[in-house]
Amino acid sequence: MTNLRPRARDLGIVIGPFPVGPHNAITDVPGVRVGQVTLIQGEGLLRIGQGPVRTGVTAIVPPGDDWFYQPVEAGCFVFNGAGTTAGTTLIDEFGRIETPVMLTNTLSVGTVYEGVVRYMVERSFAPRGSVPWFNPVVGETSDTYLNDMGGLHVRPEHAVEAIRIATGGPVEEGCVGAGTGTSAFGFKGGIGTSSRVVEIGGEPGTIGVLVQSNFGGRLTIAGVPMDELRPAGRRRPRPSPPLAEAGGRETDALGASIMMIVATDLPLSNRLLNRVSRRATLGMARAGSSGGHGSGDYVIAFSTTYRTPGAMEATRRALAENESRIDVAFEAVADATEEAILNSLFRAQTLVGRDDNTREALPLERVMDLLRRAGRLV
Amino acid sequence: MTNLRPRARDLGIVIGPFPVGPHNAITDVPGVRVGQVTLIQGEGLLRIGQGPVRTGVTAIVPPGDDWFYQPVEAGCFVFNGAGTTAGTTLIDEFGRIETPVMLTNTLSVGTVYEGVVRYMVERSFAPRGSVPWFNPVVGETSDTYLNDMGGLHVRPEHAVEAIRIATGGPVEEGCVGAGTGTSAFGFKGGIGTSSRVVEIGGEPGTIGVLVQSNFGGRLTIAGVPMDELRPAGRRRPRPSPPLAEAGGRETDALGASIMMIVATDLPLSNRLLNRVSRRATLGMARAGSSGGHGSGDYVIAFSTTYRTPGAMEATRRALAENESRIDVAFEAVADATEEAILNSLFRAQTLVGRDDNTREALPLERVMDLLRRAGRLV
Amino acid sequence: MTNLRPRARDLGIVIGPFPVGPHNAITDVPGVRVGQVTLIQGEGLLRIGQGPVRTGVTAIVPPGDDWFYQPVEAGCFVFNGAGTTAGTTLIDEFGRIETPVMLTNTLSVGTVYEGVVRYMVERSFAPRGSVPWFNPVVGETSDTYLNDMGGLHVRPEHAVEAIRIATGGPVEEGCVGAGTGTSAFGFKGGIGTSSRVVEIGGEPGTIGVLVQSNFGGRLTIAGVPMDELRPAGRRRPRPSPPLAEAGGRETDALGASIMMIVATDLPLSNRLLNRVSRRATLGMARAGSSGGHGSGDYVIAFSTTYRTPGAMEATRRALAENESRIDVAFEAVADATEEAILNSLFRAQTLVGRDDNTREALPLERVMDLLRRAGRLV
Amino acid sequence: MTNLRPRARDLGIVIGPFPVGPHNAITDVPGVRVGQVTLIQGEGLLRIGQGPVRTGVTAIVPPGDDWFYQPVEAGCFVFNGAGTTAGTTLIDEFGRIETPVMLTNTLSVGTVYEGVVRYMVERSFAPRGSVPWFNPVVGETSDTYLNDMGGLHVRPEHAVEAIRIATGGPVEEGCVGAGTGTSAFGFKGGIGTSSRVVEIGGEPGTIGVLVQSNFGGRLTIAGVPMDELRPAGRRRPRPSPPLAEAGGRETDALGASIMMIVATDLPLSNRLLNRVSRRATLGMARAGSSGGHGSGDYVIAFSTTYRTPGAMEATRRALAENESRIDVAFEAVADATEEAILNSLFRAQTLVGRDDNTREALPLERVMDLLRRAGRLV
Repeated sequence: MTNLRPRARDLGIVIGPFPVGPHNAITDVPGVRVGQVTLIQGEGLLRIGQGPVRTGVTAIVPPGDDWFYQPVEAGCFVFNGAGTTAGTTLIDEFGRIETPVMLTNTLSVGTVYEGVVRYMVERSFAPRGSVPWFNPVVGETSDTYLNDMGGLHVRPEHAVEAIRIATGGPVEEGCVGAGTGTSAFGFKGGIGTSSRVVEIGGEPGTIGVLVQSNFGGRLTIAGVPMDELRPAGRRRPRPSPPLAEAGGRETDALGASIMMIVATDLPLSNRLLNRVSRRATLGMARAGSSGGHGSGDYVIAFSTTYRTPGAMEATRRALAENESRIDVAFEAVADATEEAILNSLFRAQTLVGRDDNTREALPLERVMDLLRRAGRLV
Repeated sequence: MTNLRPRARDLGIVIGPFPVGPHNAITDVPGVRVGQVTLIQGEGLLRIGQGPVRTGVTAIVPPGDDWFYQPVEAGCFVFNGAGTTAGTTLIDEFGRIETPVMLTNTLSVGTVYEGVVRYMVERSFAPRGSVPWFNPVVGETSDTYLNDMGGLHVRPEHAVEAIRIATGGPVEEGCVGAGTGTSAFGFKGGIGTSSRVVEIGGEPGTIGVLVQSNFGGRLTIAGVPMDELRPAGRRRPRPSPPLAEAGGRETDALGASIMMIVATDLPLSNRLLNRVSRRATLGMARAGSSGGHGSGDYVIAFSTTYRTPGAMEATRRALAENESRIDVAFEAVADATEEAILNSLFRAQTLVGRDDNTREALPLERVMDLLRRAGRLV
Repeated sequence: MTNLRPRARDLGIVIGPFPVGPHNAITDVPGVRVGQVTLIQGEGLLRIGQGPVRTGVTAIVPPGDDWFYQPVEAGCFVFNGAGTTAGTTLIDEFGRIETPVMLTNTLSVGTVYEGVVRYMVERSFAPRGSVPWFNPVVGETSDTYLNDMGGLHVRPEHAVEAIRIATGGPVEEGCVGAGTGTSAFGFKGGIGTSSRVVEIGGEPGTIGVLVQSNFGGRLTIAGVPMDELRPAGRRRPRPSPPLAEAGGRETDALGASIMMIVATDLPLSNRLLNRVSRRATLGMARAGSSGGHGSGDYVIAFSTTYRTPGAMEATRRALAENESRIDVAFEAVADATEEAILNSLFRAQTLVGRDDNTREALPLERVMDLLRRAGRLV
Repeated sequence: MTNLRPRARDLGIVIGPFPVGPHNAITDVPGVRVGQVTLIQGEGLLRIGQGPVRTGVTAIVPPGDDWFYQPVEAGCFVFNGAGTTAGTTLIDEFGRIETPVMLTNTLSVGTVYEGVVRYMVERSFAPRGSVPWFNPVVGETSDTYLNDMGGLHVRPEHAVEAIRIATGGPVEEGCVGAGTGTSAFGFKGGIGTSSRVVEIGGEPGTIGVLVQSNFGGRLTIAGVPMDELRPAGRRRPRPSPPLAEAGGRETDALGASIMMIVATDLPLSNRLLNRVSRRATLGMARAGSSGGHGSGDYVIAFSTTYRTPGAMEATRRALAENESRIDVAFEAVADATEEAILNSLFRAQTLVGRDDNTREALPLERVMDLLRRAGRLV
């Protein structure tokens, strides 16, 4: 379906002082590609295993195609560990990622993990004659409000496909890939991306962020509270009683969790990437996150140059001399995260899912009204 | 000096939906007291060891006076570990705090630690005949821009005094105690506090926050950016070259670090207090923190009831049945932290320090103008 | 195949002062069950996808069968994060496990994850009409030396089967389930288990440990070094060159990683289970672990009683009064881990795998000789 | 007092395969110095504030004397956070240490902190004209069984003196410096050190460890249990009742906690130093640690070359190509830690402290007997 909805910046919303990259996307980091597979099928009543299906897979692919033998340096931060995200302990221990970074729904982490394994065995290891152990990085948020999540409609081949078709350039946002069935602040959420260009040591570097937004709180756009925008879903809440008992993780059914993937060509070590990851949550906070109990909020960050001898030497030297020069990256990642979240909401279209559960698109005209009234648009 | 400056709420600024406690202060948590010793002496050129002195001590005192034998349950979160804060590993390991929580300047952590030891040896242990090991909790931020921090003017007896005079009721804010010489966003920062009352399981509980604000970023009040308010200090930056080389931790000289102390009578375990601590940083983010490299950002939280059998039983049961009921506490701590930061700025008066370095008070009239223009004040 | 090899204790080797439970197994903790599926098929040259197969699944199943709605309290410790182990962040955040704990080979984490999802959707959620998000706990070690690990021979239905057949009583050890293809110290490793009974507050409690041993170092049995026992494999090392380049994680090919699962009916909170988990590594160390770079060493612990109001009240009170009473549990978990590792080696039989790679069984007669010479056997 | 007691190696006890450095001490790492101040005064009944005094300070000093402007790369690991150790969060955040690493008794952390501040203000900052914030690293264990710990007999000038007199070459062990009043396994413990030389990438590198031993468990020497050696103190236990109530941290009075300081000239990043730190606990485990509740067990590690461009280039390249080459360092640090612990016990002499509390020296003849019987000595 054609998506004519604008991005935040198209409407004059600017977050922070730094310029954006050519596509204002994670793909502005040279060599980084994104591939997405969207699964939408059926409608009406939920029949577990049959649908309706509103889900998908998003692959964020580091440069090259020999990721195990040429891994990227990585870091991460878990603000709220209410989720799965396979692969974080290897990031902590080895400071690297050696597969594409995959996003999907919570219960499909396993099938996507298998897909990555199949892809890498076939491409990277079988030709060499033996298969080592390696650790796919797979994150998730729950799309159970719209999707037959228990039906496990994402199959390993969808993950393989998402990697295979990954490409640079503009990135589809909104109801696509792993964001197909997600929600944020009671509205339709999804995939969003943004980037920033900063300069450290005289060299420019790009920081790109891609989010799978599925969280809640008090939506705030460029500092302006959107409390007046009450999503339709909010008026007729249907907390499913057994879930309420079970720690209430879905009680409010208005969405929970956010995956934030950060790519950069700044030559940052695991320690600095961990630090950068923490700052992504500042953007999440400014967008209105309430840090909900059941919201698994993860940041995964990688550098495409740190492990390449000789790359970005001036930046390396500048940071080694005075680590406070990292501050521009800290600001930039928060800004890009905030804007990526906005893009995920701005671009997402109204979607009807299982049991006719509906997530309405963020009403952009009213958003613009509120921003204008607050003097935040000229 | 009399302080007639208003608190944020006095001016009609309201953060979040929850009611505040009677004093809108950390002391609204029953039994929690605050004691502050302010050291201001001398002026003019810095002569290390002689002044000028612009510093102090703030003690946040848990209920009772037998803290070692009746400790409070505790948790913490380090957003940015660029600082000292003695005592965090014991909080992680034993889930408790067994002394008052002390704040001071970075280089005086040792003397304040000694003061706490002296106080407790005399009051708690000497009468019993023997002295066990115990671990004072002492946090800090740097006030070197205004204060002769290298002169170590805080002495152990100042810490003892701060504990001794601690009291409930209204809490002095601004240039007082450990906030005497601190700065935030290029303006004068200091001590600020706020509280919220929430209900879990039908019982009301209070969450109080006290901050020592000394950090930077893009000041934002109730979502409205204050970029137009350029502190005088910003116009004539004086990065001291040797510091610039040394990791640049003081280069911008506009302040760095924030200590956030959270007290509550909700019966929260170490794990839940850790979770609550993380949410305090959402309020810090909304106030405009850029998460600066050299900004040591720590949250220390304690519960006054968790270790008291039978206390707050309804809340305990409610949380055990459905932990998502903690969400109101998550929102409340973020709101109270944001408001405590605003109070620290609103109440702080212009202060001239060593070498005539000056931090101007936040210009409240202009703040109000900007808020009014944004429609955030009625 | 019948396994007549003895357990360590059968040969007079006793680790530590505490008595063991009736089966000296993790199943001595009331309600805890173990189910294992062993996959052995084919021989000769590796043909990826066809075999030879030397792998499997082990399920450690908490009491009852409604794990999501009645989760167990949990904790964990990652000594070396060189692996995957899905589910650790939820343990940190929510302090609980809400599925069986599964073990398998590294590349099959995804398929086992899917198996757990299928089992729980069918049994727990479909009858209730809706499916929430939940997080399977799946650990792994690599069996690529003997097994066609890239062939993904473990299927979701094997995981389902392992859960379905789980039972109390004696636990099979050695080349079984997830330990089918693993190695330790250059010998055949596998599954091993042990338990200890301790008393806190006048009530007895059981600590059970189950390990999937696949690690290296300097094998030490009851303090006696086994350096003289050189496994045949060690004499003709065949480091596979591409792996050597890839961070060398398989270079020595003598095994890497250990999963340690701890169950107890002591009423221990997440914080105390984290503390208990750390002590399991003391037993791992005494068995001779060198903490190898590529050795993913994880401890997952759960308490079957902590979330049951009223259970083990005397122990709760005793620990609340004086947490140092936990010391017996700390000693016991180290002892049980050490013995579980020995059992995994003692019970494992020689196995020939892919490419005729062979892991010989630990030569017990020579072990006994060395122990006797050291005076450690009577 | 002259100390004629031998080190472990003098008696033929060899831990692990690696050669030791010229002094088998942490000072074998080029540029690393140790300074110790021992305070022994008075005898008889404890009169808090008057003595008897059995305590001190140990300074481990990184190369050069401009530590703030030329910091060493650092990492750490907290096995048991039951203690203070100021400075760990900065190590995590900035990956560096910018002062000497100090050891003392628990309650004197503050005064030693002040001493470091005074030393650095005078030497490093006052001449430059301004004082930045910085974070002394101060570790501790409790010597309250022998020492008037509540009397705070360590003064800031003792810390200054320890730094001032620090020197390379042989290191005094046993009842000296911060180890003056400590205990281990019911015997007299104290300071111990050891080193190992390894080769990575064709270059030799040294790993040195210094411990302040004050912990308990089941003493094990070279794998041989020393259960028969019952310290006199163990036969007549005197648990002090108020302490028993207070979490029982001193109940057994047989000692608790160990500080392990690791220095190396291997060019290891913060991440690798964290990994190395974790392996030190393997040596602690093999020496018999039971990981006791009240035992604060900390490892602090630093690299003297990592931040020096061009230093140890071959080793850097070798590790970057294949990080598993770090394995020799992992083994070496465990071995050196185990031997350092033995040295702390072997060299410590019987000491009578406050209230005539006595810690007897480890009876070395009986140790040798047991080792001989076990065939561990030739």
